[in-house]
Amino acid sequence: MPIYNAPLKDMDFILNDVFKADEFWQANENLAHLDMATANAILEEMAKFSKNVILDLNRTADEAGGAQFSNGAVTTPAGFKEAFKQFAEGGWVGLGASEEWGGQGMPKMLTVLADEMIWSANPSFMLYPLLTVGAGMALNDRASQAQKETYLPKMYSGEWSGTMCLTEPHSGTDLGIIKTKAEPNADGSFNVTGTKIFITSGEHDLCENIIHLVLAKTPNAPAGSRGISLFIVPKFLVNADGSLGERNAVAAGSIEHKMGIKGSATCVMNFDGAQGYMVGNENEGLAAMFVMMNYERLSMGIQGIGAAEYAYQNAAQYATDRLQGRAATGAKTPAKPADSILVHGDVRRMLLNIRANNEASRAFAVYVGQQLDITKFSTDEEAVRKANDRVALLTPIAKAYLTDKALDSTLEAQMCFGGHGYIREWGMEQCIRDLRIAQIYEGTNGVQAIDLIGRKTTKCNGAFIAEYIAEIREFAAGLEDALAIKAAVLTVCGELEALTQFVVEQSKADPDFSNSVAVDYLHAVGLLSFTYMHARISKAAQPKPEAFFQNKLVLAQYFAAKVLPDLAARTQRIKAGAVLVMQLPEEYFTAQA
Amino acid sequence: MPIYNAPLKDMDFILNDVFKADEFWQANENLAHLDMATANAILEEMAKFSKNVILDLNRTADEAGGAQFSNGAVTTPAGFKEAFKQFAEGGWVGLGASEEWGGQGMPKMLTVLADEMIWSANPSFMLYPLLTVGAGMALNDRASQAQKETYLPKMYSGEWSGTMCLTEPHSGTDLGIIKTKAEPNADGSFNVTGTKIFITSGEHDLCENIIHLVLAKTPNAPAGSRGISLFIVPKFLVNADGSLGERNAVAAGSIEHKMGIKGSATCVMNFDGAQGYMVGNENEGLAAMFVMMNYERLSMGIQGIGAAEYAYQNAAQYATDRLQGRAATGAKTPAKPADSILVHGDVRRMLLNIRANNEASRAFAVYVGQQLDITKFSTDEEAVRKANDRVALLTPIAKAYLTDKALDSTLEAQMCFGGHGYIREWGMEQCIRDLRIAQIYEGTNGVQAIDLIGRKTTKCNGAFIAEYIAEIREFAAGLEDALAIKAAVLTVCGELEALTQFVVEQSKADPDFSNSVAVDYLHAVGLLSFTYMHARISKAAQPKPEAFFQNKLVLAQYFAAKVLPDLAARTQRIKAGAVLVMQLPEEYFTAQA
Repeated sequence: MPIYNAPLKDMDFILNDVFKADEFWQANENLAHLDMATANAILEEMAKFSKNVILDLNRTADEAGGAQFSNGAVTTPAGFKEAFKQFAEGGWVGLGASEEWGGQGMPKMLTVLADEMIWSANPSFMLYPLLTVGAGMALNDRASQAQKETYLPKMYSGEWSGTMCLTEPHSGTDLGIIKTKAEPNADGSFNVTGTKIFITSGEHDLCENIIHLVLAKTPNAPAGSRGISLFIVPKFLVNADGSLGERNAVAAGSIEHKMGIKGSATCVMNFDGAQGYMVGNENEGLAAMFVMMNYERLSMGIQGIGAAEYAYQNAAQYATDRLQGRAATGAKTPAKPADSILVHGDVRRMLLNIRANNEASRAFAVYVGQQLDITKFSTDEEAVRKANDRVALLTPIAKAYLTDKALDSTLEAQMCFGGHGYIREWGMEQCIRDLRIAQIYEGTNGVQAIDLIGRKTTKCNGAFIAEYIAEIREFAAGLEDALAIKAAVLTVCGELEALTQFVVEQSKADPDFSNSVAVDYLHAVGLLSFTYMHARISKAAQPKPEAFFQNKLVLAQYFAAKVLPDLAARTQRIKAGAVLVMQLPEEYFTAQA
Repeated sequence: MPIYNAPLKDMDFILNDVFKADEFWQANENLAHLDMATANAILEEMAKFSKNVILDLNRTADEAGGAQFSNGAVTTPAGFKEAFKQFAEGGWVGLGASEEWGGQGMPKMLTVLADEMIWSANPSFMLYPLLTVGAGMALNDRASQAQKETYLPKMYSGEWSGTMCLTEPHSGTDLGIIKTKAEPNADGSFNVTGTKIFITSGEHDLCENIIHLVLAKTPNAPAGSRGISLFIVPKFLVNADGSLGERNAVAAGSIEHKMGIKGSATCVMNFDGAQGYMVGNENEGLAAMFVMMNYERLSMGIQGIGAAEYAYQNAAQYATDRLQGRAATGAKTPAKPADSILVHGDVRRMLLNIRANNEASRAFAVYVGQQLDITKFSTDEEAVRKANDRVALLTPIAKAYLTDKALDSTLEAQMCFGGHGYIREWGMEQCIRDLRIAQIYEGTNGVQAIDLIGRKTTKCNGAFIAEYIAEIREFAAGLEDALAIKAAVLTVCGELEALTQFVVEQSKADPDFSNSVAVDYLHAVGLLSFTYMHARISKAAQPKPEAFFQNKLVLAQYFAAKVLPDLAARTQRIKAGAVLVMQLPEEYFTAQA
């Protein structure tokens, strides 16, 4: 069975030393109840839960074929029910939710770390509470007081769960063309009719009710994305006293057979005149979705970190145990038949790539979490504005760059196992299959890149990234020259500044430009961000003599020398523009070769 | 169900126009019986077989869980038996084998194309004949006349199949530490005892006998790789008249549960004093393996092309059919609810990346196939020497670079499908799972890279690559300046020359250097090779006005502008050397973070 131990020491280092969480919390009256001792106690509890309760269920659920569907009902894998009960009773569903509705009110910079552990240990399990949290967030922002009172406490207690019903068979990225209809009833409710696909946790046996948040069009709604409204459609109608009433006309038609996350039930949901209640204003459904989008998309990035950390731990252990060949500098363990494969540069290269990306990813998630906390808890308007811009800019990086790097990492971890990595029992191939969805759902990584280069960059003439680079430059200026990462950070800032200027100009000249180079630009901004994170890590580690900290300075140098060079390739591709991408006629692509 | 149509027109173009196969065959008396008409007839037949017989079995086999094991017996997936019978009766097993033993004597530059189709349509199926061909090649080279007469005709007819038994639980890349023993009997035979793992087609129900080629150590054999001998161990002993005798003491203990290629039975084989017959000289077993290694490793590269071609065709079709969003330059099909996603630069980028790599890969496989044909069929000693050096240099590229690019391609193809790519019925996720093994088996791609940078580069002070670059330069010099690829080829030649010189020097200075930068160097040589292939394709296409050919000039430009920039990153990483890779102590990797 694969191993997993939560990286508590690194988490404490990032919160406490890199981002000085204590000071940040104490300076904010909404968070002053929290300190590092409490934070670490929470993380230690989650470390136990993830290792002792859900880790082994991850492999057994996959081997058993995942969630099962029969006659409209979904049975979750063996052990999930008991684990979820324990999770709910521990108050974990509402860890980051408002105390007003039964949550624990913890800041995002802490919950990202707790979430990482669940993603490491059992990503399919994580998806059940995750969608509840997402739906809760949308309700918290847009629902009426009565709706909040009816649904939120039950959702955060884990008695009920939530879903987000957006996608339809013909409508994924392009939500403007959805067909699901909501016809008004005399009592103010609506009859919702349509088919939604890819609905995570659309049906399951972990909770007594499921609260679907559904995008649909009212009669005579404007065409396109401006004519979409949001509805609550509960699986069981809720009586005035909060008890469960009749079964609503919504049911799972089937579950998808997927590459991975098989323990998570991905449902086709049929709404057949189901009773629904509008949330917020008519035709503002998409906007309500965007409220929680930044949080959800960061969650996918954390799925990436979780998978890559799990993969790393197992690969490093395997590489330590596996004896094969001899060191190029002569046998390291002559008494044994061979040396550990850690003597080979190519194996170390893979492990260090993973680790250099993982540690930067984790710091980045906490950094973005902190920005989200500022937007939510701060009373300083200018700070909130800046944090909003920063979150807008970095959300596509958090989602797409972190998951792209994580896929690379899980593939490299699998490769460390040689042939054994291809065998199911080692767990590495499942890790890849489970992770792969993170690059696809919540907007594919290509869509994230287009969001970054479009709405977040060219639309504001690069203002968001200019402000980000200014912060990074200011930070770098404060570093000692002896820190090798300092020069790297300053160089990357200059390169990204020039590249962004080029991107903004070219986008004006050629409408196809930004879409054609979007992914390369996203990776360039990702590399800037990870260099910045390694600089912040290095600064915090520098004064501490223990090897744990000093090794971080080496890892930062490794990052600058071996990972950062990808920027050269990305830059060249962006400079090559869109012409060759768009030149060939559509029929070229499917013509018989 | 996924589609597949063999790219016959491209295959004809590569054979006929790019490599002038007719002239090459006519100029060689051992191949003069072959012409393009015959070659195309063979390819057309295989196109039909791959599409009509084995394509659909690929998905059904995977869905049914692949090969099944029970009480030592393996049942192949439904339909495999009938398909294999048809394959064998068509003479396909021995397509490239010597006519002396019942083969069809076809050159490698043709068989690589036939093989590609099978790899596209059904990689699990392909593995059954593939190992037979590999074993046949080793026997053809090293076995006694009597052994050849006994085994080869039955193997090439498909009545019997073959395996290669190398790996043991503790011994994979490092074969010097195998433990399987071969004790001599008075009659000249041996008793073979040991456990071999990862044995492709070790047991199955497609053939009446299975001929295992087994690496084992005789008593008192020297330690390490110089003390390994090769043995024939048939599943059923063969009587003097060629009929099947007693069951030998060899049996499958289990089959592996794998990420993919589930239709292929990957067996644990237990040899329990099984009767075996030495092939060739004692202690020369590894050398016998290396005979067929260049062919086998090229086969893995072709597995890559096959998967990437299949993925491309399906992704291009999906992208054409899927309507979502609008073109940046304004709606292309205003009468429809949305435009095809082919209007988006990011989708085109993915499809063009795949296609630019696929077309170069296919040409490269034929190029290496032609070099192998020179080594086998030519009577010109100097030509044979040069071809042997070229094959030695390029085999790691054919195996590792082609499969690395193919994995990128299948991942990008899956991404073109959005969420649907994650759903099993579309076949894209299976394609990735099936392909992934090609980067791992037959020596991981890391091991290939170490072979390239070590034995093939630093050991000869870069002589092999110098000769390769000289050929490329001479070719490029003959190109018209108007061909955009000309400048790219000449630039890359200069860059690889300088990089190789750096690599040779650094390897002498630091024993850890070459292993630490091996994969980056392999990718650099891969990029050189693909640029060369696009130059050869461009030269052949240039005079032909049809869009099919002229589009190849655009694709070559796309390659130079958008794929080749990876060389800049690879070069920077190589220049960064090994120090940061090797600096951290072994315990760093598993210390609790």
